[in-house]
Amino acid sequence: MSANWGTHIELSIFGESHGKAIGIVMGNLPAGIKLDMEEIAHQMKRRAPGLNLLSTARKEPDKVEIMSGVLDDTTTGAPLCAMIYNQDQHSKDYSLLKECMRPGHSDYPAYIKYHGNNDVRGGGHFSGRITAPIVFAGSVAKQILAKQGIYVGAHILSVKDIKDEHFPVEITKDYLQDLLIKPYPTIQDDVFKKMEQVIHEARGNQDSVGGKIECAIINVPAGLGNPFFDSLESHISSLLFSIPAVKSVSFGLDDDITRLYGHEANDAYYYENEQVKTKTNHNGGITGGISNHMPIVLTVGIKPTPSISLKQETINVKTKQNTELEIKGRHDPCIVPRAIVVVESMVALAILDMMNIK
Amino acid sequence: MSANWGTHIELSIFGESHGKAIGIVMGNLPAGIKLDMEEIAHQMKRRAPGLNLLSTARKEPDKVEIMSGVLDDTTTGAPLCAMIYNQDQHSKDYSLLKECMRPGHSDYPAYIKYHGNNDVRGGGHFSGRITAPIVFAGSVAKQILAKQGIYVGAHILSVKDIKDEHFPVEITKDYLQDLLIKPYPTIQDDVFKKMEQVIHEARGNQDSVGGKIECAIINVPAGLGNPFFDSLESHISSLLFSIPAVKSVSFGLDDDITRLYGHEANDAYYYENEQVKTKTNHNGGITGGISNHMPIVLTVGIKPTPSISLKQETINVKTKQNTELEIKGRHDPCIVPRAIVVVESMVALAILDMMNIK
Amino acid sequence: MSANWGTHIELSIFGESHGKAIGIVMGNLPAGIKLDMEEIAHQMKRRAPGLNLLSTARKEPDKVEIMSGVLDDTTTGAPLCAMIYNQDQHSKDYSLLKECMRPGHSDYPAYIKYHGNNDVRGGGHFSGRITAPIVFAGSVAKQILAKQGIYVGAHILSVKDIKDEHFPVEITKDYLQDLLIKPYPTIQDDVFKKMEQVIHEARGNQDSVGGKIECAIINVPAGLGNPFFDSLESHISSLLFSIPAVKSVSFGLDDDITRLYGHEANDAYYYENEQVKTKTNHNGGITGGISNHMPIVLTVGIKPTPSISLKQETINVKTKQNTELEIKGRHDPCIVPRAIVVVESMVALAILDMMNIK
Amino acid sequence: MSANWGTHIELSIFGESHGKAIGIVMGNLPAGIKLDMEEIAHQMKRRAPGLNLLSTARKEPDKVEIMSGVLDDTTTGAPLCAMIYNQDQHSKDYSLLKECMRPGHSDYPAYIKYHGNNDVRGGGHFSGRITAPIVFAGSVAKQILAKQGIYVGAHILSVKDIKDEHFPVEITKDYLQDLLIKPYPTIQDDVFKKMEQVIHEARGNQDSVGGKIECAIINVPAGLGNPFFDSLESHISSLLFSIPAVKSVSFGLDDDITRLYGHEANDAYYYENEQVKTKTNHNGGITGGISNHMPIVLTVGIKPTPSISLKQETINVKTKQNTELEIKGRHDPCIVPRAIVVVESMVALAILDMMNIK
Repeated sequence: MSANWGTHIELSIFGESHGKAIGIVMGNLPAGIKLDMEEIAHQMKRRAPGLNLLSTARKEPDKVEIMSGVLDDTTTGAPLCAMIYNQDQHSKDYSLLKECMRPGHSDYPAYIKYHGNNDVRGGGHFSGRITAPIVFAGSVAKQILAKQGIYVGAHILSVKDIKDEHFPVEITKDYLQDLLIKPYPTIQDDVFKKMEQVIHEARGNQDSVGGKIECAIINVPAGLGNPFFDSLESHISSLLFSIPAVKSVSFGLDDDITRLYGHEANDAYYYENEQVKTKTNHNGGITGGISNHMPIVLTVGIKPTPSISLKQETINVKTKQNTELEIKGRHDPCIVPRAIVVVESMVALAILDMMNIK
Repeated sequence: MSANWGTHIELSIFGESHGKAIGIVMGNLPAGIKLDMEEIAHQMKRRAPGLNLLSTARKEPDKVEIMSGVLDDTTTGAPLCAMIYNQDQHSKDYSLLKECMRPGHSDYPAYIKYHGNNDVRGGGHFSGRITAPIVFAGSVAKQILAKQGIYVGAHILSVKDIKDEHFPVEITKDYLQDLLIKPYPTIQDDVFKKMEQVIHEARGNQDSVGGKIECAIINVPAGLGNPFFDSLESHISSLLFSIPAVKSVSFGLDDDITRLYGHEANDAYYYENEQVKTKTNHNGGITGGISNHMPIVLTVGIKPTPSISLKQETINVKTKQNTELEIKGRHDPCIVPRAIVVVESMVALAILDMMNIK
Repeated sequence: MSANWGTHIELSIFGESHGKAIGIVMGNLPAGIKLDMEEIAHQMKRRAPGLNLLSTARKEPDKVEIMSGVLDDTTTGAPLCAMIYNQDQHSKDYSLLKECMRPGHSDYPAYIKYHGNNDVRGGGHFSGRITAPIVFAGSVAKQILAKQGIYVGAHILSVKDIKDEHFPVEITKDYLQDLLIKPYPTIQDDVFKKMEQVIHEARGNQDSVGGKIECAIINVPAGLGNPFFDSLESHISSLLFSIPAVKSVSFGLDDDITRLYGHEANDAYYYENEQVKTKTNHNGGITGGISNHMPIVLTVGIKPTPSISLKQETINVKTKQNTELEIKGRHDPCIVPRAIVVVESMVALAILDMMNIK
Repeated sequence: MSANWGTHIELSIFGESHGKAIGIVMGNLPAGIKLDMEEIAHQMKRRAPGLNLLSTARKEPDKVEIMSGVLDDTTTGAPLCAMIYNQDQHSKDYSLLKECMRPGHSDYPAYIKYHGNNDVRGGGHFSGRITAPIVFAGSVAKQILAKQGIYVGAHILSVKDIKDEHFPVEITKDYLQDLLIKPYPTIQDDVFKKMEQVIHEARGNQDSVGGKIECAIINVPAGLGNPFFDSLESHISSLLFSIPAVKSVSFGLDDDITRLYGHEANDAYYYENEQVKTKTNHNGGITGGISNHMPIVLTVGIKPTPSISLKQETINVKTKQNTELEIKGRHDPCIVPRAIVVVESMVALAILDMMNIK
């Protein structure tokens, strides 16, 4: 499946960067969930463009309009369709992009896949803008999970070579709230300043940088997931790899677990007040493809934004010639900060889908 | 879905480490494919246990018996069921493992998920042994893909801190064949000796080590994959994360792409003899979730085998007490070498599924 | 899956009778299909309410607005979202329907399934109005299929006890066009007059009637479908049974095939101009779950509209008492005529999904 | 999907009539279910061939061997693979059937679909023999459902023109048990004698007959099913139409509901001892696509066995000539009696899948 996803909940996403609207349909949601629309608006704002110099100058209020599935702010159980009308599209000429393939972008593979019919304006359906409906859906998922005591949060683990530290073994609801109150969540208080500097420098050079996001979701019950083929890692990663620019997903200690000895990597179990815990959490709350009730911790690697203003070598598929390309436009020199809430949303959706709450 | 997987081909896996048999059903295979049963036996042998000191002493011929879907060695189009009868199960007492949860293993989450009914003998359905049918299925997939000129190969990228180098940008069929002729495929000729030493040392200490596998699949046509939600990375990673002990998946430059500038990460397109290529392949043959005809390159991180003989702290779920556990048995001190063909198989299956060959 | 459907194309439906809008997302459509928007409007009109005395008085222009996936009237390959804004909702008081369950309707099972949160206004998501987006999607499917020479058409086979005759063995494109030009398509020219009389009589008695629709789709290539579990009959019927009020689906000779001898039921093959045909088509173009290139012919049984104005016995789920109910409102005394295009649409969608046109 | 089916449980079927073995994999079964293997053997016997003159002379003990997923007769939660080794295959020459397409059979569509590679011996994967694993799976499903107080039973509603009566409105566990104790279950005690006569007559004429089976499943909780696209009727019918020779499926009053008035078709609700019931059950326990707790009642139409010994007109696909065909062999002159337990099994599997019992 491509535009649709889910075993219990059912997602269907649509829209293009410069089309009329973008949106999502969420099927099979539990009925009777009172939605906090202000909280949803807050989450949307965490991703919205145009907030500061670190992101694109495109201004979109990203106001969500719910078309179905909700009555008196409460889910009815019928499919919930949410729409966001595009507003700040620039009606510039996109004919060059129909021919000159931007390196690092979807342009060339999409040209082949859709026989040249794909909407190239602003990246069309491949635009990072399509993650706005994901954030809406993720906000709904978070609210349903919160009723089960399940909370999700993420921070910037790195920007280029600047690194934040990893989540601690114990992560509480309060810990996540304190983290997410920060405009640029990091665990070390001062590390974002250095990251910011790297981003500004890249922007100054008409270039871009990438980084990593570490995400945790706490209080997930033990027993979610499967040995084959739908391990909890499979389930979560299949959503995370839909986020544009994500190139790696790891669970637990990021890729450092491959450098440990077995006696280090094996998280020792113990009882504390009759509750099962592990002394370390190198496996990120998942062993054998199934949750073990420890925080699920994962890291997502995000490549540098492919949209840069520097001149680049590429091809023209009409003339079949090698050529050069300069793309002027409104770009994020680093999408890591805006991607935090997108990663959280995907993780919340993956867990909600696995839980099958009625 | 859990035991079943696939959009076009349909996989269904079954079996336990110490049960009667393990096997797989492959539905929707193209009809009329003549299978090279010797080649399949060769692939099975690449994963089989008991070959040398680096792996478990359990001896299993892993002879595949085809129950359906094949007539005169040729696929009929009907579901192909392949079975491997277990032979060298040790009938020791497993009652301890019903109570004492092995750290780093599926034991505890499976105990919760299946209310204590799961088969714990040798790990049951969670055993690495269940990858034997995957290798069979992967061998079938490789033979079908080879008819389209598509080839897959992998090498050990690292064992603990010992690193091999990355694949080059250009990878040919011959290159892969030369690589796979080696019993322990690495790109640098001498690097495995150092890896071997690390593995032997771990074995000597009743411990284990992990590592990474880098896999490439060449000549995949451009245009496979989707923007949402079934990106080619999503599709492939959902299978890779089903392999026991896999904790990370990355595409392209492993996680180093997060440390590049945009102008470095963007692989520049050019025409060579009317064929589209890229000068670098940091994106691993996939941009925008869709293949671009360059080699698809990915890296899988494998944690140290959780089965170690060292004494470990853990819990007893019957007595609800903290306890210690020593597991004697036949273990792989490092499963990375045997996992190579499993990774190749999963990648071949993921691509075959996306290609929808009739 | 519930709100989502499809193996190759992907449908996701949403909306309620008295909500803001109803709509559908179509994923995985082939790119580059030029849509004839006038033809789509014509198909929408075939289902639209308020056309005459045989249907409900609710007036809805059912104007479709395409939100995504189409550029210059041509499919881009990205998900196509189509919306229809509701206009003629009557804002009457629906509180009675939250308590008194209408017999023959979804009210009571929906009350249980959604814990009383479902939108009951006009039937909510269960309304026949939700078939409007289906007709849109079906029109798109028909246009794609027409490019392959595949055409679909249906007629009223019966209204209550008044019967039209069955399709002939040979059905051409012209035959279907001549049929569909009629406002109330029947094969026998005069039979609808009698049907109309039965419908008017039922309306006069505040009652309703049902009937049957026979549908044919021609030039479907041989080889579509599967032995298990997704026979072509399974695939088509799973969509047809989503249409509100459909209670039976049969292939070929309606249920009369159960009364034949084997030598009659077996459609004899013969070559005509090197093309394979059958002398009869009692199996409706499908044997062994797979199409044989003869017209696929099927019959759908539709129960009398459950919305009637007669006083009915029922229960009040709040008071837990038996009670009586009179529903005044705008009802169709027989939905068979409006359902014709819905049946055609579902059949077109099922076949398009099976064909996997790129 | 074709060889795989299911949303919560996962079925994967394999095997050919004259292959080594037939079988099924059942994934996602609840763990901890103690299986009554004798009861399973009894159900297998209800379908087994060779029991009397009404069925084929082929003798197959249909002994089921469980390969995985069960320990101490109890489900472990891992995929359950069950196999039946074929024994009484006749090794006659099948080369004629590779060329001469049997009317009414899958031969021609399968020849096209599989490019002539399908196994034609005894019908291969299209054989009615493949329903043996279905009966096994259905027996497992029945045992799981019985723990929830849910019971299923079916009777012969008609053979050719000889009709039994319909199920009454109230159906109890005892009622079903009394029915199923009969070797040829009918509601009217004497009606099978007449049916038997019709079958014998057809056999004498080297011909065959079809008929209908009515099935009921009781105590299904209200609230199962969906408005779109997975109505309970859709879900059940998608399995029923996988049974070879099934050409129609109807819910409730068979197709007679299309001949009622609305005030008759609407089943009036009432409370009896605080339980919701309906006075009639013309809708067969499903309204709006969702169960209402009344018995789910459905009818399946089965065409005359296409395997008849009479000379038939057909084509030779190798010579591309019209020809005649006489098929000698072991055939059922009427498969309706043996299909009863297959229909029950499919209905049990469909309901189990919808219930998602953990």
